[in-house]
Amino acid sequence: MFDFGLFDLQTGVKFHLPHSQGSTDFMQTRDIDYRCDDVHSRGYLAWDETGERRPGVLVFHEGLGLGDFAMERARRLASLGYVALAADMFGDRRQARNLQEVATLVGGLRAAPEKLRARGRAALETLAALPQVDGSRLAAIGFCFGGSVVLELARAGADLKAAVSFHGVLPTKMPAVSGSVKASVLVCTGADDPLAPPDQVAAFENEMRAAAVRDWQVISYGNALHGFTNPAADGTMLRTALYNAQADRRSWASMQRLFDEVLT
Amino acid sequence: MFDFGLFDLQTGVKFHLPHSQGSTDFMQTRDIDYRCDDVHSRGYLAWDETGERRPGVLVFHEGLGLGDFAMERARRLASLGYVALAADMFGDRRQARNLQEVATLVGGLRAAPEKLRARGRAALETLAALPQVDGSRLAAIGFCFGGSVVLELARAGADLKAAVSFHGVLPTKMPAVSGSVKASVLVCTGADDPLAPPDQVAAFENEMRAAAVRDWQVISYGNALHGFTNPAADGTMLRTALYNAQADRRSWASMQRLFDEVLT
Repeated sequence: MFDFGLFDLQTGVKFHLPHSQGSTDFMQTRDIDYRCDDVHSRGYLAWDETGERRPGVLVFHEGLGLGDFAMERARRLASLGYVALAADMFGDRRQARNLQEVATLVGGLRAAPEKLRARGRAALETLAALPQVDGSRLAAIGFCFGGSVVLELARAGADLKAAVSFHGVLPTKMPAVSGSVKASVLVCTGADDPLAPPDQVAAFENEMRAAAVRDWQVISYGNALHGFTNPAADGTMLRTALYNAQADRRSWASMQRLFDEVLT
Repeated sequence: MFDFGLFDLQTGVKFHLPHSQGSTDFMQTRDIDYRCDDVHSRGYLAWDETGERRPGVLVFHEGLGLGDFAMERARRLASLGYVALAADMFGDRRQARNLQEVATLVGGLRAAPEKLRARGRAALETLAALPQVDGSRLAAIGFCFGGSVVLELARAGADLKAAVSFHGVLPTKMPAVSGSVKASVLVCTGADDPLAPPDQVAAFENEMRAAAVRDWQVISYGNALHGFTNPAADGTMLRTALYNAQADRRSWASMQRLFDEVLT
């Protein structure tokens, strides 16, 4: 399982095209290593083998780390025709076992937004450099903590056509400045998410206005809490994180429509 | 043009199936008269002649009155397979020629929400009673003033599967009460619409929460002003009403998706 090549951001693409670790019809999946400074990340790639370059989509995981949920989303994106890279923001594919570990892993990065952005960019550059990816058509999506990564990348002016946050954390230490955001921004948020309360949504909208962001939307789903896209969110780990099939379907469809607009 | 039958809400359906006033492929359109107390309304009906009962959708016009814009939306709905009735809220198909007339016509109804609701209900009952309509699958959409009509109908507990407001006015004198709203509510609003400023959007969301509305969503479109769905909104009549093709397409698509969910 660990016999894949290493992608080195300093020296360029070095990895060899590895064997597939799984497939559904034409779908290919494999782990992919990349580096950001001294952090070794092990992402997860999913794509349909078609021979032509496809738009690339990053998937940023929740506070629990890169696991089944983000991987399944990557495969779903691949089935839609995208090359999807589920990033590993914590390095060594670390996964939190409890809320305290989440707080440590997430807190360390959110307190240092430049580091967080650098990790996001490392994943983006990895994706953009893949032979099956059209580097001029890139997007990023993220869930919970991953939503904030997506938004940080957009604020930093990353070359993304779209940035989609699902129940993401909205405040930032480094607000967007006028003209910095290139991506079409879509924020899908639960109207009852205590991690994205109405005043933070309002502040985010004001940030978008103040930075004259060319294209942004916020969708607020009534009765939806935190983590509404994740079927595993059953309120046990975090009382206020609860799956909501309707908001999950709707937000995914809104993402697809935005991708149809800007990635094709 | 005036030789159609009269639909009388007091005595039941009296109108005869009239000749078509226009058609595109299988599309039929005609005027349709209905009454609410002493007000005679002349609505506009559009449908595809298929022989089977279809879901019915009301279209509530802007403050200018029932005109080309709402009629075109009715035809668009018909082309999607719905029977669409563009209501005439002012009676005698009155149309405002300037903002002062808008203020008079709209103000009179908004000051008397029971009267406004009754007019909306008269249109709903007219639509529901049509032989080509499946009365168990009804929805309503509205633009600007019409958005507030849709929301008033929803608050009043009208038997609607969906209520969609496009750049509608959100405050009400008769807020929804717990359990009153049956419809799935979708509010599509311009983030820069001075007629639906952030505090009113927040108040609306709080109204939905307080009334435990089963299903509601608010979509806020960045950079969109009032009237964003209407190509004729060019800022001349109302400086802050401006067409926005992107927000128009997106909001219409969101409406379609909601209809796919609840009307089929």
